[in-house]
Parts: sequence; structure tokens; C-alpha cells
Amino acid sequence: MLTLQVNTASANYPVYIGRNLLSQLPRHIQKSTAGRPFILTSPEIWALWGKKFLAAFPEDRQPTVLFLPAGERFKRLSQVERLASELAQVGADRSSLLIAFGGGIVGDLAGFLAAIYMRGIDYIQVPTTLLAQVDSSVGGKTGVNLAAGKNLIGSFHHPRAVFADIDVLQTLPDRELRAGLFESIKGGIIRDAALFRFMEQNSAKILARDPAALERVITASIRMKAEVVGIDERESGLRMILNYGHTLGHAIEAATNYRILLHGEAIAWGMLAALQIALARNTVGPDQAERIEQTIQAYGPLPPFRTTPARLLGTAKRDKKNRAGTRRFILPKGIGNAVVVEDVSDKELYSAVDWLLTHARTGFSKL
Amino acid sequence: MLTLQVNTASANYPVYIGRNLLSQLPRHIQKSTAGRPFILTSPEIWALWGKKFLAAFPEDRQPTVLFLPAGERFKRLSQVERLASELAQVGADRSSLLIAFGGGIVGDLAGFLAAIYMRGIDYIQVPTTLLAQVDSSVGGKTGVNLAAGKNLIGSFHHPRAVFADIDVLQTLPDRELRAGLFESIKGGIIRDAALFRFMEQNSAKILARDPAALERVITASIRMKAEVVGIDERESGLRMILNYGHTLGHAIEAATNYRILLHGEAIAWGMLAALQIALARNTVGPDQAERIEQTIQAYGPLPPFRTTPARLLGTAKRDKKNRAGTRRFILPKGIGNAVVVEDVSDKELYSAVDWLLTHARTGFSKL
Repeated sequence: MLTLQVNTASANYPVYIGRNLLSQLPRHIQKSTAGRPFILTSPEIWALWGKKFLAAFPEDRQPTVLFLPAGERFKRLSQVERLASELAQVGADRSSLLIAFGGGIVGDLAGFLAAIYMRGIDYIQVPTTLLAQVDSSVGGKTGVNLAAGKNLIGSFHHPRAVFADIDVLQTLPDRELRAGLFESIKGGIIRDAALFRFMEQNSAKILARDPAALERVITASIRMKAEVVGIDERESGLRMILNYGHTLGHAIEAATNYRILLHGEAIAWGMLAALQIALARNTVGPDQAERIEQTIQAYGPLPPFRTTPARLLGTAKRDKKNRAGTRRFILPKGIGNAVVVEDVSDKELYSAVDWLLTHARTGFSKL
Repeated sequence: MLTLQVNTASANYPVYIGRNLLSQLPRHIQKSTAGRPFILTSPEIWALWGKKFLAAFPEDRQPTVLFLPAGERFKRLSQVERLASELAQVGADRSSLLIAFGGGIVGDLAGFLAAIYMRGIDYIQVPTTLLAQVDSSVGGKTGVNLAAGKNLIGSFHHPRAVFADIDVLQTLPDRELRAGLFESIKGGIIRDAALFRFMEQNSAKILARDPAALERVITASIRMKAEVVGIDERESGLRMILNYGHTLGHAIEAATNYRILLHGEAIAWGMLAALQIALARNTVGPDQAERIEQTIQAYGPLPPFRTTPARLLGTAKRDKKNRAGTRRFILPKGIGNAVVVEDVSDKELYSAVDWLLTHARTGFSKL
């Protein structure tokens, strides 16, 4: 087991990465809190791992289990209200501990529930997807969707600890593994050239879930994210680079009603589209752009989707990264670096959207 | 105009107290933010003050107005979701400013909406009831209710400024004025003997809304609260004393479905009941208890209500001030001081509830 430390202005907490962490969880929890434990999970994850999860808790401290149905459409305030009412009913108080055991949706919603239940209780993240392990479980962003867009409601609320168990990934569907790996590629592109190179050169091993290869990718991804979040917790500067691919990625998800693509896939599409702007502006050279495209292809395919320019552009304009009329994009600067720009012109945006819709017809995959 | 400063670990902001503040509001806002202003208010307040409110804003910076219907039953997540969707629809972004213009419900809900919209936007408080001016608008507690209890959902999110306009109180119904004054009496009892004495000796002037007398009460109340919140922002210690009267007060509100008593009235009932425990424990003497009772009477009457011991006790047990099985009460210690106790026995609790239900039949008023 490997431990990384997240240190921000408002919180310090460990991220544990390794195998067989589920069985060590209760011991760690007992050290940090005396409050009653509650678990929020999805029925699917619980069917696979529930028994093993509970087995590690002592008889007299079995957690109460709450469920969130799977799917982006349940990441809403109405579910938060239902779950908060259940917590109140079973007697959860300010000293209680919420354990998020699931993918990004469970983690985001559980974190938000913990942020606002009785004005904030402790929680820990036990992410069960690669995407949640390398991205959403670290950094304190929590939230739910509105009909108008993803994560438009939320809080900054850091977990007390994160447990990224590599064994749990063995039951992850292949497409979800790939979708998570796109976020790791993103991390490599914007800040960690060595991670990018490792993923560029070891796609077969990583996709075969070789534990050592996965551990290396996960550790580097979390380290990168922890560093960025440590420097800029509230996304007033550096942290914005984590949004590479997200402006158009979120727009694609919204335009396809969150039904066609996984989040990581939409972000990969968004990364490719923003890459075209970067290429035209010369913040990346043609060789670098090709390496980025080929590496994304190696972890693909990116499924096709259909939408209209108007739908995409409408959502991109409402992106919550925009402030007072500016249009914000993150562009790679070479490999291992990124810049935040606020002056993307209509023409640049249209041409990125055009590239996107052309390629979206067939999907993006190895020739 | 008088300015008090709230200084906590996480925020510093001014509280302006005085007459005709509405007309000075836009100038103050313009100094602190360039973002678009949005107002959340109630239809009733807007009918009385909307014209005057808007008149002070320049033509090119007229705020967008959103409405929350009056009543505790609208202080719920479903309204937060509706309002957040409206904000998204009209293009509110992270740089936008929300102005809460109304009583405590509008202020609490607007603060919570600002806390979670796009993970937090700025807001300012323009409280229109005495209760909101002296209590809820200062200190950063925001939230909404669950069916299971009041304010079980919420955040700590401080406003950028508070404008307590004394003129606005001229349209406040008499019963609401009295209900707010009970919170000021509470402030006197727990921490400011001079405020208590002033209210004890000047009830006629204060109830006649003499502006100078009101300003003195409001200023002392806010100063007391700002001090306490500055020392203990997150209610881990001293701030708990502000909850004097709230354990049973909240239970009374819940047991009567929030329909019979105003919040301040329920708190006054709760203060009287907790006073009986304090008297039995000798943290207040009989003379002091009598002065407290008589002063509450002077600002009464406290309306009668009906409930059962079982309903009251059930809700008191779920109070969010309890932690891991303890039962927390705030007791006055003389006049101008208070203590937090966690060992109130069943017998003490039952006898306080018994006192309460006996007096609740007829109400509490001057003989």
C-alpha cells in the first residue's frame, strides 16, 4: 500500500492506493472517528463487493447501508433529499461518518450529501471506478446536476481519506476502464509528461489490468491532481487546467442527454476538439498533436454520437467556467503543460465544433 | 449609518445598520463586485419595497428578481432546485451576486442557494425582519428544512455584507417585531447584561419602534452575535450558547407543524422552559429568573399551543445539537452569561416539558 497526502488550505488527508484495501478500511476509520458509519453505494457495486466490505467491520459496528440507483439521472437534489431524510430517520448526527462506495456519481453525490447534512459531516471516498479513483474522489469537488447542466449545484468538501483499491477495478467493465484512462491521459498532457509517455508506451499492459501498471497510472494521476489541488484549491488559477477537454466535453454530454457517452469518453472527445484550437494557435506542434491523438486512439474507441452545432454551442455558452461573458478554454502547451485562455473566438470555437461533428459521425478509433 | 465588522477565520465582512440604507445599496455593491446582481425576495416584501429597491440601481444594471413564496413550507430543497434552474436559465455565473431581500426564510434559503450554485457565489443579506437583522443574517449559517426537522440541510457560507435598514422595519407586522425582539432578549441573557437591562427598562419605546431605541437593540444584538461567531465560527464551543431556547424551541415548532408559533415565539417558550432547568440547578437565582420571565412577558404575549410530551420529546431527541447520544442544553448563568451542559437528565427534561405544556394551554403574558 502506498500513501499520498493531499494538503490544501482547508484540509489535509491521505489517499491510500493498493490492493486489498477494503479489509483494512474499518481499522483506519476507527482511528479517525468515533461516529457511526453509514455507507452510500449502488445496488450493482453492493452485489459484487458488499459482503467483503461488511466482513471487515466488527459485529458491533456494522454500518447502515443506503442506496443510490445507478445512472446520471439520479445525480439530483431529489435523491439528496431522500437520502438526507433516511439519514435523519436512522439517527445520523453531526459526528456520523458517510462512506462513499461506488463510482463518480456515488462519490460526487455522497460528498455533497455530507457537505450539507446538518451543515457538514465527515465522509470518506472508496471509489470503485478508475475514473473516480484518479479524478473525482480527490480534490473536494462535490455536487449534483440540474436539468440545465452537470454539477451546477455543489460544494467544496474534502473527504477525510480516500481508499483507491486496485482489486476493486477487476470487476469494472472494460469500457469504463478505458473511459477512466482518458482522464489519466489528460493528466499526462496537462502536467506530467512522464505519465503521458508511460501510457503512450504501455497501453496493452494497462488495458490488460496488470496491477503494477495500473498502480503506476493511478498513483501518478492522483499525485498530479493532489499537487494541483494543493496549490489552487478553489480553482482560481492553476486548478482550471484540470478542465482540459471539459468545456466541449460537458457540452457533448448535455447535447446527447448523458445517454450515448461515458463521462471520460466525452472528455476525450472534448480534449481532441480543444487540441484542434491548440494546434491552430501553435501551443502544440503537429507531432505532439499526433502523439496525443494516437494515445487517445490506443485507449479507444471513442463511440460515435450525433448532435447539432446549435445544441453544442448553446450548452458551451452556459459552461460554469465562463465568467461575465468570457469563453474559457484549456489548451495543451506541448505535452506536460497547459494554458488557460479566455479569448477563444467564435471562428475557433466553430471550427473545433465542426471538427468534432465530422469525426463524431464515425467515432474515433485506430485505423 | 453605523458599521460593525464580522471577522471570522473564513470571512470578513461589514454589517451596516441605519436608516435609508436601501438607496445606498447599489453604490456599495458596485465597489465590491462587477458581477450581475440577482435578487431573491418574497412577493409580499417586494410589493412594499420593490420600487424603492430598484430605483437606486442604475438603468444599465437593473437586477433580475426571483421570488420565494412566503412560509416555512417553502424553505425546502425543491425550491432551491427551482431557483437554481432559474438562475442558470437567465445566465447567472460564478461572478454573479445574489441579494437576499426578505426575512429569515429568504435569507437562509438565499444563502444556501448562493453556497451551492456553481459551488458557491457571493451574496449579501438585506434582512427585512428584526429577527433576520439581529440573528440569521449574520454568522454564515444557511439552510433549508427536511420533513424530519428544521435546517437539517445547510452550509456555512458568509455574506459579503449585511444591510440592516431600520426603515424597512416600519412595515413589519407587530407580532413579527415582538418575535424578533425575543432573540435580542436571548442575546442579553446569554452575553450582554447591558442589552438585557436596556430591553427590560425600555419595552414601551422599543415596541413603539422608536428608531433610536431600535437601533440600539439591533446594534447590541449584532455586535454580540458577531463577537461570538468571530470566536467560534463553526459552533465547536462558544457559539453553542446562541442556541439558548432552541432545543425545546425547535421541538415546539416541529410538534406544532410550524403553523402555530413564529420562530422567535417558539424560542422564547424554549428559553422559559430551559430557565426552569437552570433555576433547579441554581445557575440562575429566583430573582434573575423572575426578571427574565417578566422581560419576556413585556414583549409578549406568547401564544398558546397544544401538543403532547411524546411529540416534544421525540423531536428533542433528534436535535442536531446532540452528538453521539448526549443531550445538549444551553442554560443561562445569571444574566449576561450562559453555560453549555450535556448531562440534562430525563427527570429534568420531563419537568421542563411539563412546565411548558402546563403554560402552553393559556399562553404566557402579563397578568
